[in-house]
Amino acid sequence: MTRLDLAAIESARKRIEGLVVRTPLVRLNAEDAPAEIFLKLENLQPTGSFKVRGAGNAVALLSPAERTRGVFTCSAGNMAQALAWHAKRLGIPCTAIVPDTAPATKLAAIRRFGATIVQLSCDEGYAPLKGWTFVHPFADPAMMAGNGTIGLEILEDLPNVDTVVIPFGGGGLSAGIATAIKAKRPGTRIYACEPETAAPLAASFAKAAPSEVHRIPSFVDGIGASSVLPEMWNLVRPMLEGSLVVSLKETASAIRLLVERNRVVAEGAGGSSVAAALAGKAGKGHIVCVVSGGNVDTEVLGKILRGEVP
Amino acid sequence: MTRLDLAAIESARKRIEGLVVRTPLVRLNAEDAPAEIFLKLENLQPTGSFKVRGAGNAVALLSPAERTRGVFTCSAGNMAQALAWHAKRLGIPCTAIVPDTAPATKLAAIRRFGATIVQLSCDEGYAPLKGWTFVHPFADPAMMAGNGTIGLEILEDLPNVDTVVIPFGGGGLSAGIATAIKAKRPGTRIYACEPETAAPLAASFAKAAPSEVHRIPSFVDGIGASSVLPEMWNLVRPMLEGSLVVSLKETASAIRLLVERNRVVAEGAGGSSVAAALAGKAGKGHIVCVVSGGNVDTEVLGKILRGEVP
Repeated sequence: MTRLDLAAIESARKRIEGLVVRTPLVRLNAEDAPAEIFLKLENLQPTGSFKVRGAGNAVALLSPAERTRGVFTCSAGNMAQALAWHAKRLGIPCTAIVPDTAPATKLAAIRRFGATIVQLSCDEGYAPLKGWTFVHPFADPAMMAGNGTIGLEILEDLPNVDTVVIPFGGGGLSAGIATAIKAKRPGTRIYACEPETAAPLAASFAKAAPSEVHRIPSFVDGIGASSVLPEMWNLVRPMLEGSLVVSLKETASAIRLLVERNRVVAEGAGGSSVAAALAGKAGKGHIVCVVSGGNVDTEVLGKILRGEVP
Repeated sequence: MTRLDLAAIESARKRIEGLVVRTPLVRLNAEDAPAEIFLKLENLQPTGSFKVRGAGNAVALLSPAERTRGVFTCSAGNMAQALAWHAKRLGIPCTAIVPDTAPATKLAAIRRFGATIVQLSCDEGYAPLKGWTFVHPFADPAMMAGNGTIGLEILEDLPNVDTVVIPFGGGGLSAGIATAIKAKRPGTRIYACEPETAAPLAASFAKAAPSEVHRIPSFVDGIGASSVLPEMWNLVRPMLEGSLVVSLKETASAIRLLVERNRVVAEGAGGSSVAAALAGKAGKGHIVCVVSGGNVDTEVLGKILRGEVP
């Protein structure tokens, strides 16, 4: 598969059906919100993020020979967990290339699913993985088609959706969901969202060209890169209204609200879409916020529940 | 409706469809569990507990005249929130009779849904409610039939379920779910579960008669009464294998695990079923734990996340 289109997304859906959770779309239980806000709860997936959809599709497309050799990715986070989870399920060797700086709690989560961890820069070659299949965390058509299945489910559950807000890291989640929704309900407004500390897509929209920003590390670590890949910019630009930028404080408040009112735990990325909608940045009407994941460190969550911004 | 049977539950399901969440059944993401544990996530309901099912059914059965006069219940917790939520949705006057000792945070949650709060003992009469319809929190056939819809959904999502574990307060949740499941898959083992601090059902099984215990208040406040009503004992006794008793420590650990591995927030009652299964008390095979609700105080949750037993 090389094209990302509705047919690819529909095929992906058949491949991953029963393997991942058909996540619920629930109302945000906040009576004073500026719009009718709905939550697409991808934090309920096994491994705690939407990444199991794309990784499940990518792994299902491997040939028997490719399965025997193994798969690898560059990630210390949600992508590594998702790929490792599917690989374990199918008995496929899996390696995660992680940066030296990856925190121990994240590495423990990857190891739980049996993946081998190699600390390297992702640009370096690594001889033992010769012949293994690389699955890119976002700029991979199979990954994006898997992500697009979220869009199909949103339209089934809320046919009159007006707006969808999607956390933006590399752009694979936005590309997949927007492709599905624009194909079936072209008038839907689709926004990306980014943290104030790392918002290269917003900068790219401002300059009408893929741009780089100075990235400040924060607890919102599932999204917020320093740049947007040109190929991803070209792909998402025609489908998105823009990128909504939210503060760390808005995001922490949204995560706390999700715990207190909807009894779900979102990570920084997952809370950012809700923060954008609550701040009125996504307008009015029926707004779906994609809660992309819930892999937040327990200590960070504790701080958020005490009203602090970690 | 006066009988609790499969037909009543199927009718209830039609009445509440689209009003409440068709909650997902997800795997507990713990590789080292003693069984294949699944979670029925009733904490994702609006108002954060299963009670919206029964309350929705009870309210749908009111005559126009009854709707005009109003509804009331005796509860400072999940029942009051659920009834108030439906009443607000339909413009029905609603009053919650609460004990003097009800904490302010619980009262605030009830007020959010527009109910009037009256601080009284539930045994006292209250003249202004003459003519209003009383909806009993558990020993009401319409409530129990609504609860039973959880059983239908469990069987749809996991047809080969071996065991279901259900938090036991007054018995209405157990009666509803057990009625549905025993009608359709009689070999399924159904257990109630109770906290060590208030386990009158376990005492009743031990004495083969409805019994009273000395109840110690704890953070597990959605279940754990001091006695079992004889009518509820007669109803549930033939359908249950027994009552699994869990410690506060086991329950707090289960709640923490649910946050860390499944990204959901359970209250004490909701965590107790998971605690029972994790301790191996429900045996092996495919076990469904009903996560009955998620209305835990934020400060209590913070303590649990720090490894304390609140």
